[in-house]
Amino acid sequence: MEVSIGIDIGGTNSPYGIVTEKGEVLAKGSVKTRDYNNPEEFARALSQSIKESLSELGEELQILGIGIGAPNGNHYQGTIEFAPNLPWKGVVNLIALFQQHFTLPIYVTNDANAATIGEYVFGKAKGLKDFMVVTLGTGVGSGFVSNGELIYGHDSFAGELGHTIIVHDGRDCACGRKGCLETYASVTGLLRTAQIMLAKSSQHSILRNTSMDQLSGKDIGDAAAQGDKLALDILDYTAKRLAFSLSNAVAITSPEAIFLFGGMARAGDLLLGPTKKYFEEYLLHLYKNKVRIEISALTEQNAAVLGASALVWNEKKAQHAQ
Amino acid sequence: MEVSIGIDIGGTNSPYGIVTEKGEVLAKGSVKTRDYNNPEEFARALSQSIKESLSELGEELQILGIGIGAPNGNHYQGTIEFAPNLPWKGVVNLIALFQQHFTLPIYVTNDANAATIGEYVFGKAKGLKDFMVVTLGTGVGSGFVSNGELIYGHDSFAGELGHTIIVHDGRDCACGRKGCLETYASVTGLLRTAQIMLAKSSQHSILRNTSMDQLSGKDIGDAAAQGDKLALDILDYTAKRLAFSLSNAVAITSPEAIFLFGGMARAGDLLLGPTKKYFEEYLLHLYKNKVRIEISALTEQNAAVLGASALVWNEKKAQHAQ
Repeated sequence: MEVSIGIDIGGTNSPYGIVTEKGEVLAKGSVKTRDYNNPEEFARALSQSIKESLSELGEELQILGIGIGAPNGNHYQGTIEFAPNLPWKGVVNLIALFQQHFTLPIYVTNDANAATIGEYVFGKAKGLKDFMVVTLGTGVGSGFVSNGELIYGHDSFAGELGHTIIVHDGRDCACGRKGCLETYASVTGLLRTAQIMLAKSSQHSILRNTSMDQLSGKDIGDAAAQGDKLALDILDYTAKRLAFSLSNAVAITSPEAIFLFGGMARAGDLLLGPTKKYFEEYLLHLYKNKVRIEISALTEQNAAVLGASALVWNEKKAQHAQ
Repeated sequence: MEVSIGIDIGGTNSPYGIVTEKGEVLAKGSVKTRDYNNPEEFARALSQSIKESLSELGEELQILGIGIGAPNGNHYQGTIEFAPNLPWKGVVNLIALFQQHFTLPIYVTNDANAATIGEYVFGKAKGLKDFMVVTLGTGVGSGFVSNGELIYGHDSFAGELGHTIIVHDGRDCACGRKGCLETYASVTGLLRTAQIMLAKSSQHSILRNTSMDQLSGKDIGDAAAQGDKLALDILDYTAKRLAFSLSNAVAITSPEAIFLFGGMARAGDLLLGPTKKYFEEYLLHLYKNKVRIEISALTEQNAAVLGASALVWNEKKAQHAQ
């Protein structure tokens, strides 16, 4: 049976999975990223663990390749470049490191692009040629597929929708600029909005029972689900900012569908409803009532590993198409 | 010799050219669009004129195809859809009309995409895989090439950078919305900026010698070239708005270069200088000092016909690559 190996390098853990073409995870494992001060040792330990998983499976497996999703992953170079949340400094050549342990094609990309390819190969974007995925977690990431291919750009760093500026002189962003989408539409941005709206308004809200330090995105979603007016207003404001950014992005790539993924997407229809409403209001007439917005089909639990493994399946598909 | 036919359907005139692979125009002609109340007659007259040009050339020509650039041209359907500046209403099937006169492959696209493919085949974008073209004329159009292919989007209407909203509640746009890039960075937008700044400021300017009705983009460029402070401020403001929009677009497709074309681009370094300065200021650190902005290599005079003919050469190239 043909399988691919998906690895999701994260700041704390780096899970992996042995994945079939249908997205079934035959085996999985994980190493603790923080335990390894140098990336050679990390790659050795991870490769060792993968080899053990493969031998435990015991089946006749034809391994097509390894896909790696990593923060700041550079697809063209096969490197991680200056990832702030990883224990290794500077540029890490992932392909070179893993080639010491596997004689297989190795593909690298960043987290949001992996989620996008995952949606393409295993999720709701199957068969679409033009779509985008927006990941709404601690930060905001995105991936754009046009003409059936992921847009990497000339340097592999395309798809930073989270760092398009949507408000002139808006909120301070971790990137050093102001008003990026990420400061409004990430879970962190949602909490900033909550803080501001709780301070500005004097209306009753169950959110006031929780200290700001303790308040989570889930609390806001739960309160909104119970009809808490202020929580609904917070989601509405967030949806409006997100919708604005999506409507501008549509004018560039004109996708057939937009898939939302990550922590914020858990709010489901409470976020999707107002997002769709504002989105249609903002859109240029050419695009109105044409572009679907949906919650991703992938679960947060295994999307990263599936997405990384999907890099391999996607390459296989591209080679068949030639 | 292999040639392609490029047709540029415009509101007043529809010029065409017989173009070689190197961009040499062997023969050209034109029909008056407004003379034809129905598109069948228009296509017949234009085809007749093209056939005469071909027979006058008298050489052994192998005609590879016809490329047509038209307002609201739909690449997938081969149609013009509800173009406000043309004498024909509704949807016009260009491919069907011209196939009555030529047994050749026929490709249709809109003006800005034709300019983009023209830059790709004949201009400064030769050999690039990721770039964008922005046309700064009466309106603002754009074309994006990623992975070596023009982004048409699922409906052929991608690349409307002019209708991304860059100022919340900004200037009224002809599209019915507010704050679109087009209301600031088109020649019309430049004149609106001039009107506002002339009214707001009391400083001396040679622009005050011309009535607002008479003032042209060229007047502002000329005044700026002579060091007129207010004219320079007008260009600076325009450049800042344009740069903002370009920096956001870069975060989506990460192009290697951006080419500016059209009336505004005639201001040359007077526009390019401040645009580059603000662009670098606005860019996310990832993209700084990596993306060239240049004036297009194509002249306004023949870019539309060359761009239309380039559709054919580009298809030839794509077929060879497969």
